[in-house]
Amino acid sequence: MNIYFGIDIGGTTVKLGMFEKDGNLLEKWEIPTRKKNNGEYILGDVAVSLKEKLAENKLSTEDVLGAGIGVPGPVTEDGVVHQCPNLGWGIFNVADQFRKLSGIENVKAGNDANVAALGEMWLGGGKGSENIVMITLGTGVGGGVVLGGKILTGDRGAAGEIGHLCVNYDEPDTCGCGKRGCLEQYASATGIVKEAKRLLARDNRETVIRKEHLSAKAIFDAAKEGDEVAVELTEKLGWYLGLACSYLAQIVDPEVFVIGGGVSRAGEFLLDVIRKNYDGNVMDALKKKEFRLATLGNDAGICGAVKMVIA
Amino acid sequence: MNIYFGIDIGGTTVKLGMFEKDGNLLEKWEIPTRKKNNGEYILGDVAVSLKEKLAENKLSTEDVLGAGIGVPGPVTEDGVVHQCPNLGWGIFNVADQFRKLSGIENVKAGNDANVAALGEMWLGGGKGSENIVMITLGTGVGGGVVLGGKILTGDRGAAGEIGHLCVNYDEPDTCGCGKRGCLEQYASATGIVKEAKRLLARDNRETVIRKEHLSAKAIFDAAKEGDEVAVELTEKLGWYLGLACSYLAQIVDPEVFVIGGGVSRAGEFLLDVIRKNYDGNVMDALKKKEFRLATLGNDAGICGAVKMVIA
Repeated sequence: MNIYFGIDIGGTTVKLGMFEKDGNLLEKWEIPTRKKNNGEYILGDVAVSLKEKLAENKLSTEDVLGAGIGVPGPVTEDGVVHQCPNLGWGIFNVADQFRKLSGIENVKAGNDANVAALGEMWLGGGKGSENIVMITLGTGVGGGVVLGGKILTGDRGAAGEIGHLCVNYDEPDTCGCGKRGCLEQYASATGIVKEAKRLLARDNRETVIRKEHLSAKAIFDAAKEGDEVAVELTEKLGWYLGLACSYLAQIVDPEVFVIGGGVSRAGEFLLDVIRKNYDGNVMDALKKKEFRLATLGNDAGICGAVKMVIA
Repeated sequence: MNIYFGIDIGGTTVKLGMFEKDGNLLEKWEIPTRKKNNGEYILGDVAVSLKEKLAENKLSTEDVLGAGIGVPGPVTEDGVVHQCPNLGWGIFNVADQFRKLSGIENVKAGNDANVAALGEMWLGGGKGSENIVMITLGTGVGGGVVLGGKILTGDRGAAGEIGHLCVNYDEPDTCGCGKRGCLEQYASATGIVKEAKRLLARDNRETVIRKEHLSAKAIFDAAKEGDEVAVELTEKLGWYLGLACSYLAQIVDPEVFVIGGGVSRAGEFLLDVIRKNYDGNVMDALKKKEFRLATLGNDAGICGAVKMVIA
């Protein structure tokens, strides 16, 4: 039997999936991410878990045609990570090390957000196109650029770092990355709430969002009902996202934008505010691009990891 | 004999070059761009000129292994132009048509700024790297992204449209493209002069640039001598260019930035103000990139055109 493993290493859990070549997900499971001793056990734990899964299914390493790994940090084309603060990792070749630990020959590693973008291209919101940009609006803002069906890695493994595009040069507060005015400061779940608090502190208008627990969802729900303050907040969010997408289009001109992450549960309402602001910020030749919602949720990482090792 | 032709179609002249495979330029010449009847004679004129050149050198079409064409407008991967207002062209397949007119089999067409970037990668300022971004600061601001030794064309042939990245959302004036705050409005030769005039109109400080004919060169020369107003102007230019380069790096993470065009005659002084502002606007992983000057001048287009058709 010919199978592939997709591995998505996060700060808390490692997500694993066993796939067939056509993308059929046979089984998925998770193991905890053991961060002790600068994360030195993580890859070994994954290798052990894969061997157990093979034994369970009466398969051997010879049945495995490849394993792809998504990692929360910059990874260069040859599989070298340049520090993953979330895991405690320094600089080393993840692909080489996992090859030794697992006995699997065909191993590739990539940045988790880039890998998720590849997954959405293959089986999710970007299906049918080989040239997409994915933006993940979650606790942070991640992204990935896929061109010709392959991840754009960049010289230092830092291509597609969309969350740290500057979209507001007047921002006084500093982002986690040390810069100011990053997209992540406005378009992550936490950023959206922070911007709402800022507005509510200086604005006396009546609004339902003042009365309830403040969350991205509450703001979108209120905006959909026409709440003036909430509409203003979502319009501003659309401005920041539309501006970031305009930079992406002027530079890589993708066929499709795919928007994912928890914030994207706002659905077409969110896409519409992005579309409007996007069209106002690009040249005529780039207007009216397709914006779609991601469809794979938390499985995007394991799907994209597998796609990396399928020729 | 095995030769290649590089063709760079501009609004006034067509530049032509006859090359060997290693990039050795055997001969170069120009013909006027005949724009009559929506530019319908341009490609035919080029084909005739190439045939004359072959006859002059006692060569035939069989000696020609390929011809590349740079065109002033968006061109898709398959050679279709989507309007070139400068030439009067509508939508048609330039590569196909030139194949028929010239009898040369191996023909490719690309956007002129993208093609120039490829030329600089191959034989100029980007030599030694396959992943570069080139920015041309001339009458307008053009650009090109080269990844893995190939032009990034984009879905609609509009990738690398760096001159129309928004770098100032507070700009009241409209750019030629219809948007506001495009890089071209500040970093083209005309944009630099316009910004200087704006500052001089509202500022009473003593400055040598008030006394002479205002040009990008005069402003750089004064800044190099320490003229306070001129320094302020070049710093602001560096801010806009550094910001645009930060977008490029966060999205494609190139190995080298190459700066060309007439404005780049300011040399290392210009690169230094860009470097400083770039480093302040990118994540740590992207700091300290290489910035180099273009070296091919007006030959970048014909060189890159040839590189397109060399396997």
